[in-house]
Amino acid sequence: RVNGARLWDSLEDMAKIGPGVRGGCNRQTLTDADAEGRALFKAWGEAAGMTLGIDKIGTMFLTRPGTDPDALPVYVGSHLDTQPTGGRYDGVLGVLGALEVVRSLNDLGVKTKHPIVVVNWTNEEGGRFAPAMLASGVFAGVHSLDYAYSRKDLDGKVFGDELKRIGWLGEEEVGARKMHAYFEYHIEQGPILEAENKQIGVVTHCQGLWWLEFTLTGKEAHTGSTPMNMRVNAGLAMARIFELVQKVAMDSQPNAVGGVGQVKFSPNSRNVLPGTVVFTVDIRSPEQEKLDRMRALIEAEAPKLCDPLGVKCSVEVVGHFDPVTFDPTLVSRVRSVTEKLGYSHMNIISGAGHDACWAAKVAPATMIMCPCVDGLSHNEDEKITPEWAAAGADVLLHAVLETAEI
Amino acid sequence: RVNGARLWDSLEDMAKIGPGVRGGCNRQTLTDADAEGRALFKAWGEAAGMTLGIDKIGTMFLTRPGTDPDALPVYVGSHLDTQPTGGRYDGVLGVLGALEVVRSLNDLGVKTKHPIVVVNWTNEEGGRFAPAMLASGVFAGVHSLDYAYSRKDLDGKVFGDELKRIGWLGEEEVGARKMHAYFEYHIEQGPILEAENKQIGVVTHCQGLWWLEFTLTGKEAHTGSTPMNMRVNAGLAMARIFELVQKVAMDSQPNAVGGVGQVKFSPNSRNVLPGTVVFTVDIRSPEQEKLDRMRALIEAEAPKLCDPLGVKCSVEVVGHFDPVTFDPTLVSRVRSVTEKLGYSHMNIISGAGHDACWAAKVAPATMIMCPCVDGLSHNEDEKITPEWAAAGADVLLHAVLETAEI
Ligand SMILES: NC(=O)NCCC(=O)O
Ligand SMILES: NC(=O)NCCC(=O)O
Repeated sequence: RVNGARLWDSLEDMAKIGPGVRGGCNRQTLTDADAEGRALFKAWGEAAGMTLGIDKIGTMFLTRPGTDPDALPVYVGSHLDTQPTGGRYDGVLGVLGALEVVRSLNDLGVKTKHPIVVVNWTNEEGGRFAPAMLASGVFAGVHSLDYAYSRKDLDGKVFGDELKRIGWLGEEEVGARKMHAYFEYHIEQGPILEAENKQIGVVTHCQGLWWLEFTLTGKEAHTGSTPMNMRVNAGLAMARIFELVQKVAMDSQPNAVGGVGQVKFSPNSRNVLPGTVVFTVDIRSPEQEKLDRMRALIEAEAPKLCDPLGVKCSVEVVGHFDPVTFDPTLVSRVRSVTEKLGYSHMNIISGAGHDACWAAKVAPATMIMCPCVDGLSHNEDEKITPEWAAAGADVLLHAVLETAEI
Repeated sequence: RVNGARLWDSLEDMAKIGPGVRGGCNRQTLTDADAEGRALFKAWGEAAGMTLGIDKIGTMFLTRPGTDPDALPVYVGSHLDTQPTGGRYDGVLGVLGALEVVRSLNDLGVKTKHPIVVVNWTNEEGGRFAPAMLASGVFAGVHSLDYAYSRKDLDGKVFGDELKRIGWLGEEEVGARKMHAYFEYHIEQGPILEAENKQIGVVTHCQGLWWLEFTLTGKEAHTGSTPMNMRVNAGLAMARIFELVQKVAMDSQPNAVGGVGQVKFSPNSRNVLPGTVVFTVDIRSPEQEKLDRMRALIEAEAPKLCDPLGVKCSVEVVGHFDPVTFDPTLVSRVRSVTEKLGYSHMNIISGAGHDACWAAKVAPATMIMCPCVDGLSHNEDEKITPEWAAAGADVLLHAVLETAEI
């Protein structure tokens, strides 16, 4: 068993970096707080006897050597970046859970044949720079490094500049490493495990996603002196697209969601009808066909809502992954060690995207989940118990150990 | 007649301060650009022999003395602040048109019985700090000075701090001055004069306004892992209120408008359903009863749209003025000098709010309007011709002269 108290203490310590306003965290990717969190993680990893490698997208790899010089490493990790008003556990549990696995092996004096590498992927959240899971996507060859470097946040700051600015641009080629396997431990971020009263989610799949960034072009005009029939109201067109997304998601039940989290009006002044409205539609489903049908419907219907208003509508895909099936051998292994440890469990499909989804393209990969209170995540009130955290870390320890071999 | 070329040159020079990105201006109130524009205006005014007074809300009063020490001044002015992506003429024409009146009187060696005061009111636009026409509202006793000082922009910056920061906090009590009359010259900002091919709008009324700032409280949650039936989607509620505002405005035709120019999602991240959505509904009508009925309808119906979604809805009035009737004597005077000068004209109701609306509470007041191309304003593409600008300034000159008496 891992040392649950130590894991919890580390979670608490990391949460002090980039503290939120309501008990959560604001440690967005490539901010000063991110740099500080990375430094603490590096210090902890080196204290546990690991050596750090950093690649050209800033992903951190802390290596615990194996006994067989020819054996590929087992990778275990997640991300330390958070949403602007994020929780303390989303991602962090997976990184510090992996660190706890190494610390526990050190305590027990257990060596493994395969090296174990604890990973902190850059920009998993995607809240600041779309798409999410950017570094693991470049690692898996899905995006080019130049694409990643060129991504901009809402203030126009550029990913590549920000990575340099915070001092975490490494020298390793992204994706040069080969993996024996990849494990990621994460909170569920949804309500199922808690409702079903299960300690462990054995993650078999991850639902797919499209992020559709709409740019609506209206006509900037005075809200008072512009008659209704002369308006080219991009805000109203946006409202109708919100309603369309809701309808498409509801019509696609079960196993589908749709919503909008980010909106930018320009010039965003109370008495100016917006000239431009930009927002991102987020749609997801574990069913490939349904996912793509939702996208097609929204892209076909949105212009029909804009045209009568005279609003120009363009759409750019700023995030996408197909539904993922995790490696059956690793999935079975997670299930069997969970049973061995005596934890209650069920199969689960991840509602959120994870770096494991991209890692699955280049290695056998899977995930382990623990419940979170009320299914709440991407919210400062995100909560788990120390017991839940420790149970998942136990499963991670044993699954990694079986894979890395003694 | 005024010197139209000089007026046009001054308009061009002022437009260089806080230049926009597409030929317009970004000289928002209490920014560095505002301070620079004020300094230029002060220099011009002093060069024309006037002396500057500044009040505690930063409004600038440049005085040309009269011949009768007991005669109250005739006030003439508007505002130099602009929208974030504003035009070159909105407000500026009224301030520099007033300056041109004084310059022309100087050229002609004409003295008046009543002093003439050229005014630049602080924060007319209201794009940065709501409400609009803030300084003239305090002047007229509609708002307290403390209320004005406490207003915040979207970044949380405070009006009082910003006024000090740019160095234009004056010592005069706001509203201590007494006016013999108030004139304001402005571009129409609407399509009527151009469509009717008239050079001068004789402004008889101004339509009233409500600015209703909605705060919708939803539940921050993951856009992927939160099932549709667990969402408390404040963005969707906002969309439905946009549609409601549109319907109420359309059902209130003619003589009614409604729309939304400013929206803030928090935390505004692509994969987080917003916890809070703030936006301002702008509704206007020249008919008091209709205006208030629109407000009542929106305030009654909006919660019914929010409740089924579980979204909490609260509304704060951040701007309001009743429809205004301008002083009949001054209105007739504007009409008669327009006829004497041989300019085509028509009566018009102002679609936008103006400092004249508050000045009308404490003095006989009226306005003069010139057309603008396509009725476009609050847009960098706002356009007028030098001839239109000069014609209105001619009317202003003569109306002021008759009022200030030789
Ligand atoms: N786990 C997580 O919240 N990832 C962010 C990417 C997503 O939106 O699914
Ligand atoms: N003239 C003008 O644009 N004033 C701003 C206040 C309003 O929104 O009417």
